[in-house]
Amino acid sequence: MSDRTRLARPEPFHVFDTTLRDGAQQEGLRLTVYDKLRIAGLIDQLGVTYIEGGWPGANPNDTEFFAAAARELTLTNATLVAFGATRRVGLTAATDPLTQALLDAETDVVCLVAKSHDRHVTEALKTSLEENLEMIRDTVTHLRAHGRRVFVDCEHFFNGYLDNPVYAKLCVATAAEAGAEVVILCDTNGGMLPAMVQEIVEDVVRLGVPLGIHCHNDTGCAVANTLAGVDAGVMHVQGTVNGYGERTGNADLTTIIANLKLKYGWDVIADDALTELTRIAHTVADIVNQAPAARQPYVGVSSFAHKAGLHASAIKVDANLYQHIDPGLVGNGMRMLISDMAGRANIQIKAGQLGHDLRESGLASRLADTVKDREAAGYSYESADASFDLLIRSELGQDLTPFMIAAWRVYTDQDEASQAVVRVGFADEVPRPYVGEGNGPVNALDQALRAALVPRFGALADIELTDYRVRLLDNGHGTDAITRVLIDTRLGARTWTTVGVGENVVEASWEALADAYTYALVVVGAGR
Amino acid sequence: MSDRTRLARPEPFHVFDTTLRDGAQQEGLRLTVYDKLRIAGLIDQLGVTYIEGGWPGANPNDTEFFAAAARELTLTNATLVAFGATRRVGLTAATDPLTQALLDAETDVVCLVAKSHDRHVTEALKTSLEENLEMIRDTVTHLRAHGRRVFVDCEHFFNGYLDNPVYAKLCVATAAEAGAEVVILCDTNGGMLPAMVQEIVEDVVRLGVPLGIHCHNDTGCAVANTLAGVDAGVMHVQGTVNGYGERTGNADLTTIIANLKLKYGWDVIADDALTELTRIAHTVADIVNQAPAARQPYVGVSSFAHKAGLHASAIKVDANLYQHIDPGLVGNGMRMLISDMAGRANIQIKAGQLGHDLRESGLASRLADTVKDREAAGYSYESADASFDLLIRSELGQDLTPFMIAAWRVYTDQDEASQAVVRVGFADEVPRPYVGEGNGPVNALDQALRAALVPRFGALADIELTDYRVRLLDNGHGTDAITRVLIDTRLGARTWTTVGVGENVVEASWEALADAYTYALVVVGAGR
Repeated sequence: MSDRTRLARPEPFHVFDTTLRDGAQQEGLRLTVYDKLRIAGLIDQLGVTYIEGGWPGANPNDTEFFAAAARELTLTNATLVAFGATRRVGLTAATDPLTQALLDAETDVVCLVAKSHDRHVTEALKTSLEENLEMIRDTVTHLRAHGRRVFVDCEHFFNGYLDNPVYAKLCVATAAEAGAEVVILCDTNGGMLPAMVQEIVEDVVRLGVPLGIHCHNDTGCAVANTLAGVDAGVMHVQGTVNGYGERTGNADLTTIIANLKLKYGWDVIADDALTELTRIAHTVADIVNQAPAARQPYVGVSSFAHKAGLHASAIKVDANLYQHIDPGLVGNGMRMLISDMAGRANIQIKAGQLGHDLRESGLASRLADTVKDREAAGYSYESADASFDLLIRSELGQDLTPFMIAAWRVYTDQDEASQAVVRVGFADEVPRPYVGEGNGPVNALDQALRAALVPRFGALADIELTDYRVRLLDNGHGTDAITRVLIDTRLGARTWTTVGVGENVVEASWEALADAYTYALVVVGAGR
Repeated sequence: MSDRTRLARPEPFHVFDTTLRDGAQQEGLRLTVYDKLRIAGLIDQLGVTYIEGGWPGANPNDTEFFAAAARELTLTNATLVAFGATRRVGLTAATDPLTQALLDAETDVVCLVAKSHDRHVTEALKTSLEENLEMIRDTVTHLRAHGRRVFVDCEHFFNGYLDNPVYAKLCVATAAEAGAEVVILCDTNGGMLPAMVQEIVEDVVRLGVPLGIHCHNDTGCAVANTLAGVDAGVMHVQGTVNGYGERTGNADLTTIIANLKLKYGWDVIADDALTELTRIAHTVADIVNQAPAARQPYVGVSSFAHKAGLHASAIKVDANLYQHIDPGLVGNGMRMLISDMAGRANIQIKAGQLGHDLRESGLASRLADTVKDREAAGYSYESADASFDLLIRSELGQDLTPFMIAAWRVYTDQDEASQAVVRVGFADEVPRPYVGEGNGPVNALDQALRAALVPRFGALADIELTDYRVRLLDNGHGTDAITRVLIDTRLGARTWTTVGVGENVVEASWEALADAYTYALVVVGAGR
């Protein structure tokens, strides 16, 4: 009981991705044709059934995408879908150039949006309820006559159903009678809750039409609303990678796929494709230039991260007591966060993940004490894996001094670049001064350090500081409180985070910066 | 039908906030005592029933928070709750120092976590199922005997129910019999789906014990799972502001409150408190130094943003055709991403809140343009009310120059305090240099500015900079990206926030600092 696996999977069952069409409505997201081709390839690797590519004829970018896709996109698993609207008022499907543009896109499947909320027909479309039905019938029939398979998205269906259920259902029936293969019920405004969706879909299912569901996240329930539709009997789910979309976004297809695979036990994509879920979600985020959400279900970098020391000893006994699935199934991994709540067990697991075996020595307890002291002083090793790794190596007695810093100073004023001078020495060379200029004191120190290190360690020329975060720790004192700085660094495919603490934002930054370069040389191997 | 308003609200109904306890488990989130006091004040303004403050005795920071709360925290709506565990194996509630620490926190209400999953009792706690029941009975009885109201969180309840429903329900019944006022069913691992939650809660409700629900977002369903619990009959919901929490986070209380108010029509907080939802969610994000999620339901900056196109003209006819609620109800606003039509109205409202009447002049449009330009350059006026106030006064032609800064420079090195020199002039005096020393460049600039201003405006001697937050805006460039600084300032009972932006953290800080002193003199009246 209470197990979704007892529900039978409808056959066929469609996983329909609309990242390239509805996902592109998200604020700040702008996709080139090349972006769209790359994303389509990634989504195809995931093994979804349909990929909606855009609205040919409505904008040149989308028209060009379908032309480019016909030339150079080979999909292994998915079928490409062109999106469009029912023909316009006063035209026929045969005379509306936008309907022709849909045929010109030469996809096997077309997804048409149709109005199904009476108020939208009369107030936004400004036509009669009968004419809207005729627009659905005419357009579907025309596309079917030209050999297309047709899906119909009933826009604003749920609001329409609440206002006028007879008309909303008439739209569904009309589309099906005209030859639509699936009719999708859309919560376009995103205001529904799962219990409402389930009740409405259970009623519409009685029409005997194959149904789909399309949800938005305005009540924080897009995934749950989609599953409510599934429980009520739909055979087609729509969503976008990472939940991209207008306003609060579309239903996150990444989460829906993982829920259907792992909670329902439905074989909607292959097991080995599921292990690519995290990589694909993050790669799409990279392409659209959005930072991946750390807390995203299944694929977030924090989604299997554990902080509490209380649980750490039990996690060693059986990790599955504390996580709802094995993170490896979705290509993610468990992470132990080091914090002052951490005991020895946490430290041993974390050190193991970094490749240090601390099980046999008394080192884990010593290190737990050191971490506790340093966290009391303001350090935080939770995200600063690289500084924690250096701390372990230091306790293990490793040499962590590929370079030595004898002194630094920096000068800043209101209209010139900052200037920094650092005195840096090496095992075979006494300290001498190097100078750097930059925007602000930390950038100037970074430039000075590069001036010292790059001539000797050429690989460091490509190092990049990708993020820089500052936090005051002891509030109530303002600008003279303790400051903690976290710096993210990238070299090639490797990224790492270091931490610095001081009474002075520059001093704290400098410590994190020096750790970042030390890590590059000692651990990443840029010094070899 | 399909309307949640037909469900009757249980009486009483608890909205229980655990941002300060379970929310603090989030990766990267570290709260000082001062942070906790400020957040508690904000959550209290929202009108929740209970605020869980932390675990006294388990860590010094939380023990100190309860002592500080007793001294200086006055809550208008909420009751403060101390969190703890059932007494440990081998002790009694009377002899366990952690139980005593709970009593020492001197809150009226204590929330105890208890195990209710048989495997967790035998494998993690390593004791017998009977002993765990005795731990629940003993601890609840002891706290009741000392006059406390007791809530019990049944940890891992849903997994426990699936493995051994009889034992899981026995834990609930034992807690209630011993005097627990509410027993909360926790989806600790976050793996449940709404249909499973509803079915299980409907069964447990038959025990006749007042129940609560506590969910995590590992399947993307935390909000929906909470509502499924509500639909099945719980009278107490737990969550955190912005969904902060371990792994994928806790159920987002911000979203739950808005859903209960606006979809269920339940009066869980006051209408005028609901209009503060967006401000409070964003201010808490600022305090914990996490960027607010743009797509967060109800309160996200994108949550009522429309990429016009197709919908633009229809939105002008009736915006409610395209949004699920009036965004003003939650203190948010509609935004058109192509032509910003909402800007002016927002600005008029916000200016009105600051005491400026912009209704009659063309100033609101001019100001909307200025704000748009400045926000594009990286400024953010959402929490920086003081800088926004100065911007309005500047457009109104007010004199904002009680002092003039001609130049500044600062010098920092690794072992001395930073030194700053600022050249400051006044209406009746040409600029001359003042010097300041401090921990780091910003503190040194602050000291130099005080040296210039305090002799002339004595009231400024008591000014205090209470917080300082730095955020990089343009990731991918590291230490030379655009930097935004927010500074919180206090003088007596007044506190205000200013913003500065620059390529240089010192330059951005300096701008925010100068605004903070200008505001003190021009608006707070410290110059009189």
